[in-house]
Amino acid sequence: MPPTFRAPASKASANPAYFEDRMRLSRYFLPTLKETPSEAQIVSHRLMLRAGLIRQHAAGIYNWLPLGYRVLRKVEQIVREEQDRAGAQEILMPSIQSADLWRESGRYDDYGKEMLRITDRHDRDMLFGPTHEEVVTDIFRHNVRSYKDLPLNLYQIQWKFRDEVRPRFGVMRGREFLMKDNYSFDLNQEEARKSYNRMFVAYLRTFERMGLKAIPMQADTGPIGGDLSHEFIVLAETGESEVFVDEKLLEKPIPRDVDYGSDLQPIVDDWTSLFAATDEKYDPSQHPAVGEGIVTARGIEVGHIFYFGTKYSGAMGAVVMGPEGDEAPVHMGSYGIGVSRLVGAIIEASHDDNGIIWPEEVAPYTVGLVNLKVSDTEVTAACDDLYAKLNAAGVETLYDDRDERAGAKFADMDLVGVPWQVVIGPKGLKNGVAEVKNRKTGDREEVSLESVVARFAG
Amino acid sequence: MPPTFRAPASKASANPAYFEDRMRLSRYFLPTLKETPSEAQIVSHRLMLRAGLIRQHAAGIYNWLPLGYRVLRKVEQIVREEQDRAGAQEILMPSIQSADLWRESGRYDDYGKEMLRITDRHDRDMLFGPTHEEVVTDIFRHNVRSYKDLPLNLYQIQWKFRDEVRPRFGVMRGREFLMKDNYSFDLNQEEARKSYNRMFVAYLRTFERMGLKAIPMQADTGPIGGDLSHEFIVLAETGESEVFVDEKLLEKPIPRDVDYGSDLQPIVDDWTSLFAATDEKYDPSQHPAVGEGIVTARGIEVGHIFYFGTKYSGAMGAVVMGPEGDEAPVHMGSYGIGVSRLVGAIIEASHDDNGIIWPEEVAPYTVGLVNLKVSDTEVTAACDDLYAKLNAAGVETLYDDRDERAGAKFADMDLVGVPWQVVIGPKGLKNGVAEVKNRKTGDREEVSLESVVARFAG
Repeated sequence: MPPTFRAPASKASANPAYFEDRMRLSRYFLPTLKETPSEAQIVSHRLMLRAGLIRQHAAGIYNWLPLGYRVLRKVEQIVREEQDRAGAQEILMPSIQSADLWRESGRYDDYGKEMLRITDRHDRDMLFGPTHEEVVTDIFRHNVRSYKDLPLNLYQIQWKFRDEVRPRFGVMRGREFLMKDNYSFDLNQEEARKSYNRMFVAYLRTFERMGLKAIPMQADTGPIGGDLSHEFIVLAETGESEVFVDEKLLEKPIPRDVDYGSDLQPIVDDWTSLFAATDEKYDPSQHPAVGEGIVTARGIEVGHIFYFGTKYSGAMGAVVMGPEGDEAPVHMGSYGIGVSRLVGAIIEASHDDNGIIWPEEVAPYTVGLVNLKVSDTEVTAACDDLYAKLNAAGVETLYDDRDERAGAKFADMDLVGVPWQVVIGPKGLKNGVAEVKNRKTGDREEVSLESVVARFAG
Repeated sequence: MPPTFRAPASKASANPAYFEDRMRLSRYFLPTLKETPSEAQIVSHRLMLRAGLIRQHAAGIYNWLPLGYRVLRKVEQIVREEQDRAGAQEILMPSIQSADLWRESGRYDDYGKEMLRITDRHDRDMLFGPTHEEVVTDIFRHNVRSYKDLPLNLYQIQWKFRDEVRPRFGVMRGREFLMKDNYSFDLNQEEARKSYNRMFVAYLRTFERMGLKAIPMQADTGPIGGDLSHEFIVLAETGESEVFVDEKLLEKPIPRDVDYGSDLQPIVDDWTSLFAATDEKYDPSQHPAVGEGIVTARGIEVGHIFYFGTKYSGAMGAVVMGPEGDEAPVHMGSYGIGVSRLVGAIIEASHDDNGIIWPEEVAPYTVGLVNLKVSDTEVTAACDDLYAKLNAAGVETLYDDRDERAGAKFADMDLVGVPWQVVIGPKGLKNGVAEVKNRKTGDREEVSLESVVARFAG
């Protein structure tokens, strides 16, 4: 008789003590900065350096330190879950690509200096992939033959390199950056529109889960034409470009309980029937005037979805057999989200003078526990006890157990932007209470020590 | 009053229908091959191609398809959990590195043709990192000053590139490969040994969780000297090299309930006091003879841990202030695990003539549900129902709902190596039973339909 499927033995036998200790600031690698780095021109770059999220390695190339990498992985996981939910399948294509495929598509000479070109030891032309249309089309043509295998949507989350002439703004315009890119394959344009719509809705949900307000805006389709190209622009007061948006879009609820097998055209129509455009596209003589239901705001592009038909499949011979036995190039679309850029965009959209204010879904930790007096054994015992209980309850907690003055601790906690601060000192402890502070609103209240865990546990 | 921390609204409101459908083979991108690809010389390479886990992009460079990427991510997650548990902190350093750091350490000219050298658009010398000692030492020297911040252990899981002159054996010796590499920093050699020991024990646990028997073997330390260098070799009949091992090592239990804050030297001594060496190191005139408690086996190197003292910190000026106020170069070690290589190694260690036999911990799915007759509406209804219930119970299930003959379905399920097959056909359904087959043992038994979920659910 087969045994039941068991949880890993080593999980069950894990000793959490040492592991938990990593989240004590006395051990955590969190090099915060008091001074504002002079090279950082925008607030997200300044705060990511100051809060110890990143360190520059070379122009436009960054090291992600523990706290920053934790946020990046949370953002990545939300993107992954919403892609999975919408029916996309995760793969991973290589970073280093063969130039031959790009010669087939005709893009090798066109792409310009942003493409990092490489010669390997056997003098073969390679490149660090700035995008993967050619590679995925090559996979498709070797492995898919029939319309019965469609629709197909393959995605990856991967570090890309584009050799920007003037990298700046930290992770917002870096050279090495993390991207989710995916590619849909359909028999014809009508089916391709359904794939496009699934991504349109998935993107609305993805950005909302990160606490962002992202508005889809019509984008260029180039020689392909049609209406199947949208940029998703996050609204942030410090955004890079000006946008013009129908105010009704700002309050439009994000679709929940989506059945991705159903017709999503009504949802897409509902969003695209209202005006929204970047300043490049806005023409006051043609479009609704500001004030007449149109508001201006600043925005940051975080996603782009695009149907390009048979551009690559035609050039590279990626054909499928249709129901009548006829072969035709497959219809494709591509869909991108700037995952590392999103970390910067979230900070642009959510910060104050004291530092970052993480939305809970992407926060590196939910609770920041502040021990106001580590030399006081009773205070430290109470903090250690609460820390252990929060961990046991699955509440992600960063514990400031350093022997620092209270002001420095408060400043660091505000800077790194954990959503909730739980502060324990000698005075409160006498009354059996901790102070709980909401980082976003600044509201504080006293909470009995016994009820702290229940307040945050699922 | 702060609200309790809630699960994401969009998770709660998720519609699982479309998502689940991805794991139906009628939609899953799983291009299996009946023929053995001629270019594959070893069994793991053959099976990874045949089972649709990977496709070659260029020599030594692979695309990971959905089933293969799923396994890779499970292997990666086990590595991550054991690193976290042992007190290492996850970061991510860049793929594209500045050559200047390698000139500081003196390795730029020494490294040879395996390093992929790149010139960017501003004619700066860059390279695709084959390893990260220089980068991590640079992070350290800019952010850590005092012995109070030690011990520090930083790890990353990242795609590397080494331009092998003759890439072969699939992912076992590719050019682009996924690696876990980490770096420890300590005040002196005595403390560095503790960091080394933590990784030694973490590695024992890591490989065991993947269903592997990995033996640590003394390795070269080069000019550094000492005994702090071990390779971890997985035993597999089809392994690349011959090893000589004290038979008592084969039965030695892996440490459980490890307190990584305690003295681990006794565990390390227990393992290293018994003889184990690769054929390069084995000298019959000096070492115990085969037969006298020593057995021979075949092995695959999957990890290497190494203390190298002040080699990089000295050259690059990474110093810390000691308790007496004196500055000295920090003592370092590095630790590698070949994550993508492990997928191949697991297959080498666990397969038969029919295909892969995944250990449960790294299996892409736990259960393969086989619908023997999709044209039979009752059978299909029973399968759909069971599939939904397995998913709801959190049992990862791959559902073969294709309209194929039974033989082809059994062959594919054996090939992809899911640990448990649950087969439902018209005959069994009449009796209210499914057939449950253990992929590894081949044992089959009839199980009532009602009890299938409970058999596999947590």
